[in-house]
Amino acid sequence: MGRVSSRLEDLPLRDDLRGLTPYGAPQAPLPVALNVNENTHPVPQEVADDIVDAVALALRDVNRYPDREFTSLREGFADYLGHGLSRDQIWAANGSNEVLQHVLMAFAGPGRTAFGFAPTYSMYPLLTRATGAEWIAGTRGHDYTIDPDDAASQVRVLQPDVVFLCSPNNPTGTPLPLEVIRAVYDAAPGIVVVDEAYGEFAPRDERSALTLLPGRERLVVSRTMSKAFAFAGARVGYLAADPAVIDALRLVRLPYHLSALTQAAATAALRHAPVMLRMVDEIVAQRDRISATLDALGYQPYESWANFVLFGGVDDPAATWQALYDRGVLIRDVGIAHHLRVTAGTEGETTAFLDALASIDSRS
Amino acid sequence: MGRVSSRLEDLPLRDDLRGLTPYGAPQAPLPVALNVNENTHPVPQEVADDIVDAVALALRDVNRYPDREFTSLREGFADYLGHGLSRDQIWAANGSNEVLQHVLMAFAGPGRTAFGFAPTYSMYPLLTRATGAEWIAGTRGHDYTIDPDDAASQVRVLQPDVVFLCSPNNPTGTPLPLEVIRAVYDAAPGIVVVDEAYGEFAPRDERSALTLLPGRERLVVSRTMSKAFAFAGARVGYLAADPAVIDALRLVRLPYHLSALTQAAATAALRHAPVMLRMVDEIVAQRDRISATLDALGYQPYESWANFVLFGGVDDPAATWQALYDRGVLIRDVGIAHHLRVTAGTEGETTAFLDALASIDSRS
Repeated sequence: MGRVSSRLEDLPLRDDLRGLTPYGAPQAPLPVALNVNENTHPVPQEVADDIVDAVALALRDVNRYPDREFTSLREGFADYLGHGLSRDQIWAANGSNEVLQHVLMAFAGPGRTAFGFAPTYSMYPLLTRATGAEWIAGTRGHDYTIDPDDAASQVRVLQPDVVFLCSPNNPTGTPLPLEVIRAVYDAAPGIVVVDEAYGEFAPRDERSALTLLPGRERLVVSRTMSKAFAFAGARVGYLAADPAVIDALRLVRLPYHLSALTQAAATAALRHAPVMLRMVDEIVAQRDRISATLDALGYQPYESWANFVLFGGVDDPAATWQALYDRGVLIRDVGIAHHLRVTAGTEGETTAFLDALASIDSRS
Repeated sequence: MGRVSSRLEDLPLRDDLRGLTPYGAPQAPLPVALNVNENTHPVPQEVADDIVDAVALALRDVNRYPDREFTSLREGFADYLGHGLSRDQIWAANGSNEVLQHVLMAFAGPGRTAFGFAPTYSMYPLLTRATGAEWIAGTRGHDYTIDPDDAASQVRVLQPDVVFLCSPNNPTGTPLPLEVIRAVYDAAPGIVVVDEAYGEFAPRDERSALTLLPGRERLVVSRTMSKAFAFAGARVGYLAADPAVIDALRLVRLPYHLSALTQAAATAALRHAPVMLRMVDEIVAQRDRISATLDALGYQPYESWANFVLFGGVDDPAATWQALYDRGVLIRDVGIAHHLRVTAGTEGETTAFLDALASIDSRS
């Protein structure tokens, strides 16, 4: 092909995309990567072996289109989630971003609005705008908590078509009390999505938003296998909701959006849920160790129910980020002044991060 | 969860989705399924074994997000396609539908238009409308061929932002001469997509639209592994274009849209391209046998360069479809009066279809 390439600005790109850069954290091959809230523990070998067998079986008729209804996988999610859920209340897609995209395509899109309490997951506004809807950012308390009455009031005034409640919140780790969900649901005219991507890292005795589903046909609880299940590379997100919501999502999904290999791998992994989740306690322990150590070092860590910790008191986040990078530790500057975010890794990775940070004088 | 489910019409669904039904051909477990143009030959065992090994390797760090740039896979496609293409000219996604969705999101979307010569692939209008753009249908000659001057004239008048040229055309199988592509490209103000989903079934001495890429920065050639590569279940579509087009698609893709398992499986399959493609000649032979036999039976098959045959002269397509169904043979009623479409399967499947059809008196 001709070596003379045109420039992007010479192409008939949509006006609203001009000047944008692709979304995504840096993918740098550093020894200690704690920047994108991955589960840094590999999938246990016994589970991997079973997944490989399942994939080998699926390959026998990979020449055929996959089950468009991914029935076995939906049954697997219903069993895993419990709460009396059945497969007709389950949806899944290639990562929770695609799950949320489907929700936005069905219930938001051009001429409609989506809303969340900032700072929150940075993909919500991007997904919203990519589907043609307008993003509206609400506010949180000074410690990133959400007050039920204030939240309901914001929603009542703005009347958004879709509300995102991230529980616990990313990038702050903040727990979300069920009373906030109840208050927002009652105030909202449209769909309320509780994003429990990090739900498995919350204290075991806390109740999931799944318990609020009965009688709330506009409530959606989304999850992912990326975090607790150590399955980020397999791209499997899912949600639970009223069967009518699932019917709506069928209208906007691409036919056969979930590959037979993805269905096979995820279904096999779900059969081993207890084994897959056994690193969760270890990760929670490292998260709490990070918080305690950051506090001792003079930083201000926020309460986190996720697999990461946001901490304030950083004089120059860009400089600290770079100093850690130079020591082989990759964390995340999420764009909040004087703050940085770090993922709880293995004990060794956590030690590497804490030691590297202690060697840098970067408190403000 | 409460057993009382709400109805879809009670939810705050987008108005433009109300009353729609999900897209998709019936998935019926019939012995002879020739309805969705799958490659009915399984992936050869030697290739499946290599894919399983590649997936097993990828599972070792499936806890990490996949390579967002799917570099190895893009290199694999560039090598496979040849024509001096390099990886910076390649894009891929979960099936060619998602590839086309990305093109539409970048270059069409709300306030813009996409165009194709009807009848053509039924997903084009659906993908177009799902991304907020308007679909405009152009016309073909009586035998579904496209005249270059007429095509250019239609495009010049309508000035669509994206033009789809299906080569060969689905559901008609019609070959598309390169001179049509040249004429349409010169007349079009925007992106011209040549969809070569069935390109490998064309005569070997025919030139691909890939040969037209040099110097045409608005030209896109899309392909899929679903058909010739017998990989429909793995959901892998791709395209070749100017690197600036690839940059545009990066702006609209979801981050990490291609799973590590998909990347591994597809990359491994591409290493075995000659073996994967060895069923193509056999399928082409069955396609030509179908055409000859349909002609002998008094139907009017259209010239096809794909792995299927559209045939006219059917008195009552719904009745013939049902009669074949009752005999265990599933084909496709594509909604063209007095026509049906059948996929070229194995020799046995083809015989089953032809025998079943011969036993039905359904000529008009």
